Amino acid sequence: MTENTTVRLKTRPTGMVNADTFAIAHEPVRQPGEGEILMRVDYVSLDPAMRGWLNDAKSYIPPVGIGEVMRAGGVGEVLASNAPGIAAGDFLAGLTNVQTHYTGPAAGFTKVDPKLAPLPRYIGGIGMPGMTAYFGLLEVGQFKEGETVVVSGASGAVGAIVGQIAKLKGGTVIGIAGGPEKCAYCVNELGFDACIDYKSENVDARLGELIPKGLDVYFDNVGGDILEAAMNHLRMRARIVICGAIAGYNDFSKIKAPRNYLNLLVYSARMEGFVVFNYAKRYPEGAAAMIGWMAEGKLKFKEDVQEGITRFPDVLNMLFTGENFGKLVLKVS
Amino acid sequence: MTENTTVRLKTRPTGMVNADTFAIAHEPVRQPGEGEILMRVDYVSLDPAMRGWLNDAKSYIPPVGIGEVMRAGGVGEVLASNAPGIAAGDFLAGLTNVQTHYTGPAAGFTKVDPKLAPLPRYIGGIGMPGMTAYFGLLEVGQFKEGETVVVSGASGAVGAIVGQIAKLKGGTVIGIAGGPEKCAYCVNELGFDACIDYKSENVDARLGELIPKGLDVYFDNVGGDILEAAMNHLRMRARIVICGAIAGYNDFSKIKAPRNYLNLLVYSARMEGFVVFNYAKRYPEGAAAMIGWMAEGKLKFKEDVQEGITRFPDVLNMLFTGENFGKLVLKVS
Repeated sequence: MTENTTVRLKTRPTGMVNADTFAIAHEPVRQPGEGEILMRVDYVSLDPAMRGWLNDAKSYIPPVGIGEVMRAGGVGEVLASNAPGIAAGDFLAGLTNVQTHYTGPAAGFTKVDPKLAPLPRYIGGIGMPGMTAYFGLLEVGQFKEGETVVVSGASGAVGAIVGQIAKLKGGTVIGIAGGPEKCAYCVNELGFDACIDYKSENVDARLGELIPKGLDVYFDNVGGDILEAAMNHLRMRARIVICGAIAGYNDFSKIKAPRNYLNLLVYSARMEGFVVFNYAKRYPEGAAAMIGWMAEGKLKFKEDVQEGITRFPDVLNMLFTGENFGKLVLKVS
Repeated sequence: MTENTTVRLKTRPTGMVNADTFAIAHEPVRQPGEGEILMRVDYVSLDPAMRGWLNDAKSYIPPVGIGEVMRAGGVGEVLASNAPGIAAGDFLAGLTNVQTHYTGPAAGFTKVDPKLAPLPRYIGGIGMPGMTAYFGLLEVGQFKEGETVVVSGASGAVGAIVGQIAKLKGGTVIGIAGGPEKCAYCVNELGFDACIDYKSENVDARLGELIPKGLDVYFDNVGGDILEAAMNHLRMRARIVICGAIAGYNDFSKIKAPRNYLNLLVYSARMEGFVVFNYAKRYPEGAAAMIGWMAEGKLKFKEDVQEGITRFPDVLNMLFTGENFGKLVLKVS
């Protein structure tokens, strides 16, 4: 196979991405230069943050440029290497972007073992989303044993791991997810204490019933009304971890801020944003913890594997409609 | 003098307080029982938080009850004492409430020296507002030498001290205040690097001009549009200290949340609320620092002394219209 199928940004979207947002091209595979590798990309990760990378706005990383291959984490097999310590046949995870073949520097890629876990998991529960959950809950959220955690996007890539780590460490965990199937999964499979179906239940009222004494950590993946509802249930010194805001990513002008933000004052509480890249130096620590728990059978993972690189825009949108169930990845090669 | 003039809560206000909110009564002075003191209250402190204490809502302390003497910090002279270690002629600061004579426990009162500083200062710059500034900037805001601080309510009881401490510790300080007189005071008297007059200038645009690299600490006393403007100018890892929200205290339903709260995520920033009571155990440390700086002539104070206990409702409202200039106190005896 000598062809690289690429997904390049064509026009910046307003609202959801669509077929016009990206150009799909078939390009020759470039051979690796000095210090470079050539990789077949097997899976790429689809994450809510990607929508933000398409906006021409100052953020924690530069936007994807028009004409550039869409940024994405991916995992696959090395086909050829001119980089020290990396050989053909190795499997790597890193920033492959959305294409079938990656040629470029090896920096930032890490070796993964396909016998230890399915490849998609290395861009999911034990990859960046796993690191996001680990450092977000324990470092930003300063979760301590015995505390009560509420997590939105509870069955998603990050939320499911947040809740499981909190349970492993002796917490009470309430999930918030969309639909009875996802909620049942959080409680029955992941071991959460309860899960609120935001599509059919009043989140504010249910939180009042489930945790009358309030929450210590709210891990927010969605923003909007659910963030505001959670902020009605703070305990003293509560921490709100702002990990994402799926509700607002497609239209920043419609973002709702929590009108009850003064509860931060009433409860001496904290709201803090973060991106996982802040903890890059500590990924080995996070990965070791996740792999250890996985080996002990203490963590469950669910990947939602979609197929076909040309479906990239539609599959990305599944994150925002809530159609995915589990960590969303796209099989591209 | 055997009469105690009291200001008791009559009806809970909606909006600003008015003449109907409080009942002014003349009551016999109660003599102190075992362990109690009788104090002539010379000055009481007027603080924005008082408006919150009038609402029948769960908060960090219970609301003032209907019929109760309005809660307030005050300072005055002991007339009689049955409390160990306290004698007639001592001057004390503590929770006297809004009345001319306090009879009750001595717990929570501290001795003050009228020769060291004018009495109103003990309920101002070196009292609770001073402690609020000290712990809010250094502990909640985690201010470090060389950082850039923006403070709203800059000429007020808390803001003026926040800015001066930051300057003392090698920071760059931008104040936000209402009107040219207050702004000139911040720059010429208090030594701030600049001050934005929110009544005549576009705060967002001016911040962009004054601190193009953004702010490390935003100390918020006002909320509303000014908070939102400040949040457009965060540096990485910025800290927003939520100390108050004068803009919203009289009508919580009109509180504006910062629509750009996702900048917390973009800049890995933090927004944290606090009340000074959290640091009660460390008041001696804060007071020692403030008194030390005062003795060295490194801190300037400005008290706005109003007179007449019957004017209490009107004087309280000055805080919300911005009519006061400096720490607002009421001379009651």
